[in-house]
Amino acid sequence: MKNISIIGIGLIGSSIARSIKSIFPELNIEIIDHSKNHLEKSKELNLGNEYKLSIDNNISKSDVVFVCAPLSSYEEIFDNIQKHLANDKTIITDVGSSKLQIIELAQKKLKNKKFVPGHPIAGTEHSGPQSGFKDLFLNKWFISTPCDLCSEKELNVINDLWKNMGAKIEIMDAKNHDSIMAITSHIPHLIAYNIVGTANDLGESIKSEVIKFSASGFRDFTRIASSDPTMWRDIMLSNKDEILSLLNKFNDDLKGLIEAIKSGDGDYLFERFKKTKNIRQKILEEDKNKS
Amino acid sequence: MKNISIIGIGLIGSSIARSIKSIFPELNIEIIDHSKNHLEKSKELNLGNEYKLSIDNNISKSDVVFVCAPLSSYEEIFDNIQKHLANDKTIITDVGSSKLQIIELAQKKLKNKKFVPGHPIAGTEHSGPQSGFKDLFLNKWFISTPCDLCSEKELNVINDLWKNMGAKIEIMDAKNHDSIMAITSHIPHLIAYNIVGTANDLGESIKSEVIKFSASGFRDFTRIASSDPTMWRDIMLSNKDEILSLLNKFNDDLKGLIEAIKSGDGDYLFERFKKTKNIRQKILEEDKNKS
Repeated sequence: MKNISIIGIGLIGSSIARSIKSIFPELNIEIIDHSKNHLEKSKELNLGNEYKLSIDNNISKSDVVFVCAPLSSYEEIFDNIQKHLANDKTIITDVGSSKLQIIELAQKKLKNKKFVPGHPIAGTEHSGPQSGFKDLFLNKWFISTPCDLCSEKELNVINDLWKNMGAKIEIMDAKNHDSIMAITSHIPHLIAYNIVGTANDLGESIKSEVIKFSASGFRDFTRIASSDPTMWRDIMLSNKDEILSLLNKFNDDLKGLIEAIKSGDGDYLFERFKKTKNIRQKILEEDKNKS
Repeated sequence: MKNISIIGIGLIGSSIARSIKSIFPELNIEIIDHSKNHLEKSKELNLGNEYKLSIDNNISKSDVVFVCAPLSSYEEIFDNIQKHLANDKTIITDVGSSKLQIIELAQKKLKNKKFVPGHPIAGTEHSGPQSGFKDLFLNKWFISTPCDLCSEKELNVINDLWKNMGAKIEIMDAKNHDSIMAITSHIPHLIAYNIVGTANDLGESIKSEVIKFSASGFRDFTRIASSDPTMWRDIMLSNKDEILSLLNKFNDDLKGLIEAIKSGDGDYLFERFKKTKNIRQKILEEDKNKS
């Protein structure tokens, strides 16, 4: 492997650049981003070797192309890759948080190309090339959701790259990925945005007190709700079906809690609140097994 | 001040015991808790000087009585204080997360007694006497919500105690306190319990994957949702009006987001998600001003 391209140099793209550069310092990294500002920052930070505002024929020399852009830009990106990529060896891979719709899009747009869909379960609430860091993926999961645009061979190339970046690999069906992410990530983000939004719409005087006295709970929600709005808009639209179906369940459960509060049914509340401790316990055990 | 009583030796009560003991080592601390287990742990940890399973006439010698028990036990506790407390000098104070209902109860139950309602904005998801620590209140807010059961004099005694424990004091109207807490703490907890509950009700196989891949977002929610169920049941019932009224707004806002996802209205989602960054920014500025 001699050349890679990274399309989109935000938190994830710039972390890949940093990580790969530290492992394979001889590798040539082409960075493509339509934001001049992002490109300039990337140059200053010395994240790559070539800097481009758009995809051009140069992409054909790349062994691997990482798509690390918002989901809503994939269609244009796939069109441009199809237009400029003159071989069927280059492996295109991505890091998008929703997989089923992306695979369908790739099947439509990428002709005689290799595509390995994937998703590293890593991130922070910060965005932009200045926010990435080399060890972002260390001990984190990389979920690989293979499709008919790649064979075992390409899959192994990408998975090995992620292993080199410190990630643990899990291979999973795309639909399964999307429904797990809906509950562990997409709906929590939607709810956090919603609750902070509700607070934001309160009058100015109560808002300033909310900020002053925000303790754990709301505070955590504001951190989650400070994530990149473009990225999260795209995720909500791209993983729509799973998100809407789980939100139905969420709303039914919430109605149950609201009814119990209204009628003063303490036993119901206690039983619901007690049950959830169990999942926390298992997550902490999982952490222990990791370390 | 020579004697204090602490009724309920959980996270908050045991942190008060530790903090006061470190500042006034000569003070006599009476610990009252109906749990034998809690009392034995408290003895082992040397948190006090006297240990009682119930309130008795001994309480009359206390200068200050801290009520640190679940809100649902206040009625019984106030009745027992009224029965055994033979003077009108002892100051009764509390740490409950909801204030308006508690003040009404105190006005009904405590005759010719001094009551200073309060709420330290501090805590963790852990409970029990072993979970407390001396510096829990350091640089945290103590919200004092005075009522007609105390004069300036008693208010100052309690506020000075909290200042000694490292807290910053804010004096506030009880209704205002309850509506701020509904948004910053009570509703976030309810929602976190709800979302972890929804996940908990999924099939076993998806549940184990949810645990395995739980990243930020859901992970934070499980921490919040591992808080003491008795305490949170009581808070939901005690601050019912504020919580239900804000939940109405929350539900309306959520409906808006769901409609936007359904209809693919990316602009609406983007605008809603962008707005919330602002509050996070202000909370981080507030932190800077503190330090």
